[in-house]
Amino acid sequence: MVTDEMTIGVSRRNFLQAVGVGSSAGVMFATMGAVGLAPTAAGQPKNESWSPPRESDFTLTGRSRKKVVVVGAGPAGLASAYELQKAGYKVTVLEARHRVGGRTLTIRDGDSETDVNGVRQTARFGDGIYMNAGAGRIAQWMVTMDYLRELGVPYEVFTNANADAYLYNERTGSTPGNPTRYRTAKADVFGYTSELLTLATDQGALDQKLTAADKENLRSFLRSWGSLKADGTYQGGSNRGFSEYPSAWNEHGTPLAGPGSVSEVLASRMGQYFPFEINWEQSMLMFQPKGGMDTTYDYFVRAIGKQNVHLDSPVTGVRNTSSGVTVSYTAKNGKPREIDADFAIVSAPAGLMRGWETNWGPDIDAALGEFALGSPAGKIGLQYRSRFWEDDHRIYGGITETDMDLAHIWYPSYGYGERKGLLVGYYNTGTNARTYADMAPKQRELRAVEQGVKIHGAKYRTELESSFSIAWHKVPYIEGAWAYPNTESSRFKQLQQGAGNVYFAGDWMSEVSAWQHGAFWGARYAVQALHTRVMTT
Amino acid sequence: MVTDEMTIGVSRRNFLQAVGVGSSAGVMFATMGAVGLAPTAAGQPKNESWSPPRESDFTLTGRSRKKVVVVGAGPAGLASAYELQKAGYKVTVLEARHRVGGRTLTIRDGDSETDVNGVRQTARFGDGIYMNAGAGRIAQWMVTMDYLRELGVPYEVFTNANADAYLYNERTGSTPGNPTRYRTAKADVFGYTSELLTLATDQGALDQKLTAADKENLRSFLRSWGSLKADGTYQGGSNRGFSEYPSAWNEHGTPLAGPGSVSEVLASRMGQYFPFEINWEQSMLMFQPKGGMDTTYDYFVRAIGKQNVHLDSPVTGVRNTSSGVTVSYTAKNGKPREIDADFAIVSAPAGLMRGWETNWGPDIDAALGEFALGSPAGKIGLQYRSRFWEDDHRIYGGITETDMDLAHIWYPSYGYGERKGLLVGYYNTGTNARTYADMAPKQRELRAVEQGVKIHGAKYRTELESSFSIAWHKVPYIEGAWAYPNTESSRFKQLQQGAGNVYFAGDWMSEVSAWQHGAFWGARYAVQALHTRVMTT
Repeated sequence: MVTDEMTIGVSRRNFLQAVGVGSSAGVMFATMGAVGLAPTAAGQPKNESWSPPRESDFTLTGRSRKKVVVVGAGPAGLASAYELQKAGYKVTVLEARHRVGGRTLTIRDGDSETDVNGVRQTARFGDGIYMNAGAGRIAQWMVTMDYLRELGVPYEVFTNANADAYLYNERTGSTPGNPTRYRTAKADVFGYTSELLTLATDQGALDQKLTAADKENLRSFLRSWGSLKADGTYQGGSNRGFSEYPSAWNEHGTPLAGPGSVSEVLASRMGQYFPFEINWEQSMLMFQPKGGMDTTYDYFVRAIGKQNVHLDSPVTGVRNTSSGVTVSYTAKNGKPREIDADFAIVSAPAGLMRGWETNWGPDIDAALGEFALGSPAGKIGLQYRSRFWEDDHRIYGGITETDMDLAHIWYPSYGYGERKGLLVGYYNTGTNARTYADMAPKQRELRAVEQGVKIHGAKYRTELESSFSIAWHKVPYIEGAWAYPNTESSRFKQLQQGAGNVYFAGDWMSEVSAWQHGAFWGARYAVQALHTRVMTT
Repeated sequence: MVTDEMTIGVSRRNFLQAVGVGSSAGVMFATMGAVGLAPTAAGQPKNESWSPPRESDFTLTGRSRKKVVVVGAGPAGLASAYELQKAGYKVTVLEARHRVGGRTLTIRDGDSETDVNGVRQTARFGDGIYMNAGAGRIAQWMVTMDYLRELGVPYEVFTNANADAYLYNERTGSTPGNPTRYRTAKADVFGYTSELLTLATDQGALDQKLTAADKENLRSFLRSWGSLKADGTYQGGSNRGFSEYPSAWNEHGTPLAGPGSVSEVLASRMGQYFPFEINWEQSMLMFQPKGGMDTTYDYFVRAIGKQNVHLDSPVTGVRNTSSGVTVSYTAKNGKPREIDADFAIVSAPAGLMRGWETNWGPDIDAALGEFALGSPAGKIGLQYRSRFWEDDHRIYGGITETDMDLAHIWYPSYGYGERKGLLVGYYNTGTNARTYADMAPKQRELRAVEQGVKIHGAKYRTELESSFSIAWHKVPYIEGAWAYPNTESSRFKQLQQGAGNVYFAGDWMSEVSAWQHGAFWGARYAVQALHTRVMTT
């Protein structure tokens, strides 16, 4: 046991650093894990630690290896199966769909999807071209990076922000053919806000808050940040960009027209997009596996063993029995099948599990109902025969933001220098996603292109070769983009306890919903709870 | 000829867009180029246009193909040779050093450099590991991107900015082991400045400048940008980052301590680093050729023909003759040699050309003297046996900024997921660069490591395998990092005219000195001047 006495002589901070985790409860659990399992009250971790089950946990204690059925081959399911199997569990994964990855769906040439209404699309993409139809980005701090490294998945920068991408706010002044570059909008917003704050400081308006030294430090920052003139005013400058950049001899470049007045700049509402870049989940640098987000899950399947992952096998029931669980499903051949196991980890979308035949009772069903994915989100991939956004617009990645219903345009973070390329022509949620989802695929394409032309001109239509769109709330066995559960609710805490021999996993069981990070941590906690129970009973 | 009459009926803007250039002088020149060469007053372009010489310029006019000697196989020299040869010129390139690329120098295992004092270093790097000892980054708008595309050079994102990289200001409060993440410093600086500007706005301090609508737009932006609370104050938040990030179940993460007071945040001078990211030359996204910056120049050499590029051939003289030029050099075998040609484009460092035997006169020498590179800059590559900055610090690229004399630490933008990696352990200029340059290579390493340990801890020393350092003002035949010429000076304009049959090229002949973009444009203008003369005489 770790006691307070053990920390005498080292500062709390140093001790925690030495053990390598960030909270003292974490230290306790991790240290217990390292020296042999200690029983915990409810058999559950109470902290952020992760002490993966190990093969030696079985060999050293003489316990028999348990059998676990994992339902769902998305990030949470595959990570659960992977961690369990590394420790010697016998694992079977059942996946309802024809492919693994869940909402980390990568569409390549020849891939087909049929929605819940029977509408079928088949991608007609060029060699090496793909569309991440679901998850697209990974932040450096996310545990997803650790799995990429552990599995050996190659990865590259995902271009989440780009000074040369466009902003296009039709409702507040943007007109077709006249999008604004991020860099220009930033120079203007930061320029004017710096001017205003300098002025207020100089006028003494902040004397109650700032010392003379503070004011000098502040002025110095603002002068540089806002590219202010000696008199403290903002009057544009090179950071806005150029229509022709400076070149050689005496060609100083052609500055962009502007800036507009402070009123115009504020009224444009361009600044509303800037917080995204400093957001804790979205700040660059971000990353993506090379070749498509689902590449990660191919590596997981390889590690787990392809023979242990059953596709086209939708689960129909999960029942606790006196000795474990019985999972019923429809096999690929259409026949009903059952598997008995010691435990199950179920990582299907919460809402859909209520349709299964279960004996976990109405309380669990009610809890699952609160975590139904439900939210709509949609994307369209537009394949072009030329990379005009790079060649003509000099936008080599990043995201263009709009107030049109296409919402975002994503430029590809791969394939630079290739002939063809694929944009994400819309990525939208809520009402906008429903608007597109309710259209036929061709109509979605037409609408997205009509809007994109306003930003990129005629080539956005004339260079188009093919498209593929997804509406997440219409994808069978998924039926939604994500849920943002109330993690303080009693329902949430109930699901953490599991239901008999069944544990729940998924990004919706995490504090970071809608990210692979959340799915992985949800999986780890389910695995840890299961394993702790195995080791203490 | 393009006349004002031709633009009737189309707006100036649309007309310029249609022709594809951004200034009316540019239109005129480009259009003339397209319809056959028109004579110009001084035989020189007066604008930003680039109308490359074409093979048909010779075939259609029956002119003989001229012979050009290009001195220097850096970006300006190789681009000059490439553009000339594409049009049918006979080109010979003479390079003083043992390799091409000039200041785009990539060091790989086994590469040696001997400085002007005879100090020799040989790199001992792992497979696939390299150090860009000179130029390291390319902005999207730069013409460099066009050459990468034209030559087929593969490229990838250069990570110039990273929210998870560190800031370490020892003189204003940072202490060993306690660097600040960019994301934390940004949240605090933007938070407090947003709070202050909101307060000033609410108090009416800006009523002379802002309407009621402006104020509401401004408040709305600041609330979001600064993560302000409902009462308009900044009190930290998730954008600062966490010591343990949120995971699953009820693990909300461990927020970082802080923020400090507004005085502390301003006094830290962390904000001084932020303008870099919105700078016109430095804004992300930026790019690098895969495998090292000099890869581009291997492609150039392949296009020009290896047999036309002579290494280890330092030029000793350039003389105008009645029929052209005679260039003297020392051949690889140590023997003096001469080449006669119609023209020369010289792209050696300006200052060093004054040492040649020439007959262009003292005015040209004096002009060249003003553009001597001179400025010192240095870098050290530190190869580590593990990528602890990624695994432990979760920094996958970008730059850490310090007020120590190492100045910047660059994390690699390649090799993610590999076992080993190479940092740029210092990148400094001016006095700091001289400090390191005056040390022996081992001492440079020790000093860089001693400082880096303060940021990255013991592994920065214990994981080190090897190092390689460069001091640009000590590199033979280069002797400096860059020059920032006064492009309005009469000397500058004199060099644009060339000297008889000799033209000058280099980044120092551009408006964007110290960038490949400037070198390429300098080359294009020299080529264009030469070609216009050939076609009009």
